[in-house]
Amino acid sequence: MISKAERTKQLIIEKTAPIFNAKGFVGTSMHDITEATGLTKGSIYGNFENKDEVALAAFDYNHNEIIAYLRKRIEARTNTIDRLLVYPETYKIFLELPILKAGCPILNTATEADDTHPLLKVKVINALKNWKKAIEKMIERGIERQEVKSTTNASDFAFIMMSLIEGAMMQAKVTGDPEVLKVSMSYLEKLINELKP
Amino acid sequence: MISKAERTKQLIIEKTAPIFNAKGFVGTSMHDITEATGLTKGSIYGNFENKDEVALAAFDYNHNEIIAYLRKRIEARTNTIDRLLVYPETYKIFLELPILKAGCPILNTATEADDTHPLLKVKVINALKNWKKAIEKMIERGIERQEVKSTTNASDFAFIMMSLIEGAMMQAKVTGDPEVLKVSMSYLEKLINELKP
Repeated sequence: MISKAERTKQLIIEKTAPIFNAKGFVGTSMHDITEATGLTKGSIYGNFENKDEVALAAFDYNHNEIIAYLRKRIEARTNTIDRLLVYPETYKIFLELPILKAGCPILNTATEADDTHPLLKVKVINALKNWKKAIEKMIERGIERQEVKSTTNASDFAFIMMSLIEGAMMQAKVTGDPEVLKVSMSYLEKLINELKP
Repeated sequence: MISKAERTKQLIIEKTAPIFNAKGFVGTSMHDITEATGLTKGSIYGNFENKDEVALAAFDYNHNEIIAYLRKRIEARTNTIDRLLVYPETYKIFLELPILKAGCPILNTATEADDTHPLLKVKVINALKNWKKAIEKMIERGIERQEVKSTTNASDFAFIMMSLIEGAMMQAKVTGDPEVLKVSMSYLEKLINELKP
């Protein structure tokens, strides 16, 4: 059974996660947190050491939401090419997806945290590492199953894929124009299809 | 002749531009500004309406520095392929370039401004539009001069190029590892070389 304290903690994370993603760590105030949760400052501090700790939990929450969304779709497919295509298919329409509406938490947090917030920075670095590993594993599985060319460099492909996704997302997010996402994700789909032996 | 007021204004912009790029708009305090310039708060407010106005001028300054750096190198070359290659060659080593050390001002400002700061957001949108136009013009000139395949879609190529650069830069900046830049920019060099007729 989940205790009342755990439930309150969870409520704080869920209610503030979209705010941290949109406004950033420095931009989110204690006032934003009390307003979003309907709780008092004392109650927030009863559950978290400081704003820092809420921000770290909010990052995990936002990141896990996206992982769960992608994983569900990837696991519903068998062939490696189809599995890899989940990424461009998802990011192509991200401006319409509620979980990605405020942008990619990795991207949003990376540019803010890199010069100012060491703990968040570590979380972003690990998120990037794990994402890369997941793509590499998918490609290696594809090579074993002869669904992907054996000459494919999994590490290089993962880097190029992640660069295209994050770069296109940044542009689409700030301009509000999905065109760059459409073009870059169609190009990524072409690259993925070219991995076929 | 430049007036004393103009010189002070310029000093404030030059000294605070790297701070705004590193810490972001919300993260840069009036204290950071007085400390970096050695001026009093009164003197800052004598030259700028508010922090907002300093941030906008700092963005222009950071952005113009990079444009000047790139333009000088592009104009020193004649062939379109060689001109386009200035981009991957520059961004490949950006962690070592003083003007890009704190990251791309477009990238840094985009993720912060998109949900919080309408005037900075307009600046970022215009910077992206002008960058795209510059690449398109280079490609169109290349087609005219028969240095680039006539079938090249200049708009799509510009989007893909910008996505690769911004996405790779974000990852390299936060992880401190230049590997993703090396891989993504080598790939971009290959794409540019494939534009040859």
